Amino acid sequence: MGSIPSSSRASSNPSPSLGRRDAVAGILERCREAVRPALVEAVGRLHPWNGEMAAYALGWSDVAGTPDPGGSEGKGVRAALAVLGAEAVGADGGVAVPGAVAVELVHTFSLLHDDIMDGDGLRRQRPAVWKAYGTGPAVLAGDALHALAVQTLAESPGPWAGAAVRSLSGTLSALVSGQAEDLQFERRPWRGSGAVGPEQYRSMAERKTGALLGSAIGLGAVLGGAPAGTVSVLERSGCHLGVAFQAVDDLLGIWGDTAVTGKPVHGDLRQRKKTYPVLAALAGGGKAAQELAVLLESPGPMDDAAAARAALLVEEAGGRAATREEARRHMDAARCGLREASLTPRAAGDLDALFTYVLERSW
Amino acid sequence: MGSIPSSSRASSNPSPSLGRRDAVAGILERCREAVRPALVEAVGRLHPWNGEMAAYALGWSDVAGTPDPGGSEGKGVRAALAVLGAEAVGADGGVAVPGAVAVELVHTFSLLHDDIMDGDGLRRQRPAVWKAYGTGPAVLAGDALHALAVQTLAESPGPWAGAAVRSLSGTLSALVSGQAEDLQFERRPWRGSGAVGPEQYRSMAERKTGALLGSAIGLGAVLGGAPAGTVSVLERSGCHLGVAFQAVDDLLGIWGDTAVTGKPVHGDLRQRKKTYPVLAALAGGGKAAQELAVLLESPGPMDDAAAARAALLVEEAGGRAATREEARRHMDAARCGLREASLTPRAAGDLDALFTYVLERSW
Repeated sequence: MGSIPSSSRASSNPSPSLGRRDAVAGILERCREAVRPALVEAVGRLHPWNGEMAAYALGWSDVAGTPDPGGSEGKGVRAALAVLGAEAVGADGGVAVPGAVAVELVHTFSLLHDDIMDGDGLRRQRPAVWKAYGTGPAVLAGDALHALAVQTLAESPGPWAGAAVRSLSGTLSALVSGQAEDLQFERRPWRGSGAVGPEQYRSMAERKTGALLGSAIGLGAVLGGAPAGTVSVLERSGCHLGVAFQAVDDLLGIWGDTAVTGKPVHGDLRQRKKTYPVLAALAGGGKAAQELAVLLESPGPMDDAAAARAALLVEEAGGRAATREEARRHMDAARCGLREASLTPRAAGDLDALFTYVLERSW
Repeated sequence: MGSIPSSSRASSNPSPSLGRRDAVAGILERCREAVRPALVEAVGRLHPWNGEMAAYALGWSDVAGTPDPGGSEGKGVRAALAVLGAEAVGADGGVAVPGAVAVELVHTFSLLHDDIMDGDGLRRQRPAVWKAYGTGPAVLAGDALHALAVQTLAESPGPWAGAAVRSLSGTLSALVSGQAEDLQFERRPWRGSGAVGPEQYRSMAERKTGALLGSAIGLGAVLGGAPAGTVSVLERSGCHLGVAFQAVDDLLGIWGDTAVTGKPVHGDLRQRKKTYPVLAALAGGGKAAQELAVLLESPGPMDDAAAARAALLVEEAGGRAATREEARRHMDAARCGLREASLTPRAAGDLDALFTYVLERSW
């Protein structure tokens, strides 16, 4: 794999009209271009049917298999974290490409199977793979992406492939453990000794969301030949970013602008999702928390008025503020990690900008 | 991990009343005992819910999580192949334990997900995992076993872990590719240019059934420090065993003794499965093949008389003989591999006995 052009074009653009957001767009584009050929090659190794479903899941084609330049493709945040992880430890970003491919494949696999488990019929404004191709084929496509991710890394050249596979395999185990926890939360009560505490939710988010973001930067650093201590600091940094991201996502799930999120107002409350704001509110145990619990325990669908009331109660009981604080605290910890490790300044700057971008989520 | 006691007790038992079958039972028991603690430990690393489903899938417990010594557990053929693979190249069988654990986990994962894809509600006379726990949880449990298999091998000690993971990851990709092919066969016509030829079926079986049996012996040899040439011969040998096994399974699916197989007479024909005997019969293209195609193409369920007639036509068109020949040829090739590699005589003898046992399948 060739060397990746420097990010100078994007991150030090002299035009005053180009702000931080444009700089991040440039970083993402540069990394996507660096990783894309290897990702296409990897997907090309799949059985044609699995390859077709993978291309759909990756947003490369529509359900008829026709190339779809309509922009359903992900931003490639994880791939960029891997490339920047290598650059940050002084290596050429190109060495991180197998890791970047692996994390993008794992991310796609996990969304694909999670949609089956959660019964979510929509993903990026299109039918989820299981809706488009059927549950059985979607299970298979996910398995194929899972296997391909490991294979891509296991067969990658260089002296660090073994360490990289060990790291990714731990991440995959963490992911499924986090998903198990998340699914089991649904079955637990809103109150009493069996209730889900905010700290249990965080532990789930560390595995379900944090592990893969941490693995992305960590794999870049591993493949860049970084010492174990640096890898570990960067992994933790990415994990904190993931937990912060989840907290912001939970805020958006209740108070997000529907025009931006594409989801109904108070959506997570209508679906009675056990997210951080709600769990933090309930954990407070005051009057608003009591009323909120009664509302959430009541059977039948939650109408507009009930959902609006629930949102108000979450806020009154301190759930919104606690979640903002949770996001802030983990974002600080994530940034702290970037400073703690001795990184090359440009890549560290790019990572910092990318962290902010991930959290702003107004895209 | 400790050294595994020699197989002398089983394979050179002096009692004339103990035949080959008892010797194989002894080999299987010895290997199962050697692998079991590591397998239990690995499953113990799973999230408790995934661990509960895994224990059910492995036949260790019933659906309530109660230990179930009732014998729903598999024979551990793959684990035994791994242990014997190491012994055959002169190593202590104990070095193969992480490989043996990995192949048993992969086998369990693939059955679990295949049952979802195929809609099979029964596995070893009990409800399949998706029937017992729901489709979503079963997808998750399979993912957890898949990840755990890779992790077990990636974290195993010794200098050959990297090579072993590379080998297993190739096997996993082959497995999902074979499953994709098998699922797509169902959608193809019985006649004409789109029909499935026997050689396409064999290529599917090499991946879906052969790859994991080949991987089992191959991983044992890899972890035993064997040179690449020996590993490759043993992998091919196990792959041939798998194809032979599939051919015998296909014969049993039509003409098997229901008291032994636990499946209805002519079961595969009633379900209109595209198996080797049928595809070989149709490929002949004679009068019996024509009538068979008409029967298979007719809509609606196939009654007793139609299924019996179809079985007769498969036989008349040469499908039964061709499948017996297919099984014999691949079994010869599998045995040939055992002779070709320079193996330690006792382990080679044990492998040969196990090969025969796998094929006899009257258990």
